[in-house]
Amino acid sequence: MAEAGGGTAIDELIALMARLPGLGPRSARRAVLHLLARRAVAMAPLAAAMAEVAASARDCVVCGNLATADRCTICADPRRATGEICVVEGVADLWAMERAMVFGGRYHVLGGTLSALDGVGPDDLGIPRLLARVADEGVGEVILALGATVEGQTTAHYLAERLAGAGVRVSTLAQGVPVGGELDYLDDGTIGAALRARRPL
Amino acid sequence: MAEAGGGTAIDELIALMARLPGLGPRSARRAVLHLLARRAVAMAPLAAAMAEVAASARDCVVCGNLATADRCTICADPRRATGEICVVEGVADLWAMERAMVFGGRYHVLGGTLSALDGVGPDDLGIPRLLARVADEGVGEVILALGATVEGQTTAHYLAERLAGAGVRVSTLAQGVPVGGELDYLDDGTIGAALRARRPL
Repeated sequence: MAEAGGGTAIDELIALMARLPGLGPRSARRAVLHLLARRAVAMAPLAAAMAEVAASARDCVVCGNLATADRCTICADPRRATGEICVVEGVADLWAMERAMVFGGRYHVLGGTLSALDGVGPDDLGIPRLLARVADEGVGEVILALGATVEGQTTAHYLAERLAGAGVRVSTLAQGVPVGGELDYLDDGTIGAALRARRPL
Repeated sequence: MAEAGGGTAIDELIALMARLPGLGPRSARRAVLHLLARRAVAMAPLAAAMAEVAASARDCVVCGNLATADRCTICADPRRATGEICVVEGVADLWAMERAMVFGGRYHVLGGTLSALDGVGPDDLGIPRLLARVADEGVGEVILALGATVEGQTTAHYLAERLAGAGVRVSTLAQGVPVGGELDYLDDGTIGAALRARRPL
């Protein structure tokens, strides 16, 4: 018996939607019904936008960010400072930095973290390319904005070592109490890091 | 500053995805990143499936269910009994009935409920078409599977009146304690309905 009772094309669409993160069979059905009620104004444009992105999306040849041309909009923007490179693990992290609107330099997307277990080495993360950029672009500071996880911090320390002889300042994001955070709800590790990094008021 | 930093096509796709029910900007970004990491195996097939459904989906000419041909898979299935019609408000309700796998007859999708306020009358809900089917298809029973809401029950009573002279049995879904339900958590209306509809054991 067909799930949707509407033919296999609708069933297949629901099955594909249900595989998206944050959606399950139930919410996929709701989303597809929502689209089916708006075939011309919502469903066709969404299908077209998705097909266009699937065909045109690629990795920026400079920084590894997602792009629809050879260079991403950040690397192609002459207003972005070339003296600072912010190193992030993935594109989602880059988007989070951009949403915060606190950084005016450029990025380098590693695409993961070093992992001996999974066989991810420096070459897989484009680290030679990062070192070449530091030398070529007149970079004054490399900001390591990696996750506060074991893998993120291991990768950060490796990068700091590799950059030690490059005549560039290497910094990392501060750890501490998040804005709006209450001590009562914080984990011990964060409280410890915030105490060690305390500063005069 | 571009949301995604990846060009307007990706931004636009995220904006369209964020309008789906159950998704917001955050989960739309996650879903699009998930797809971007799987452009060939997930994104292109999803775009193609959506375009195909957008182009081929239509309402079944008999029952109003969603279909990819003139008749939906249920109306086209000779194994479905023609003697029983289950009347539902919408396609989502039809899908819910089908998932329960308890009904072997055919459906009639109203596409809403009667509403003087919103100007929804019998003609808007295909009720003349339902009466014609009852006369033409040799229907023995019409099951009103409408919501246990004021609008659903008003529509059910109107349908029962219109069908009174058609020589057909009219029934409605039972109201009572849901399977697995605990009395402690049930609303007063449901407990009252279950008590009034009590049956000998």
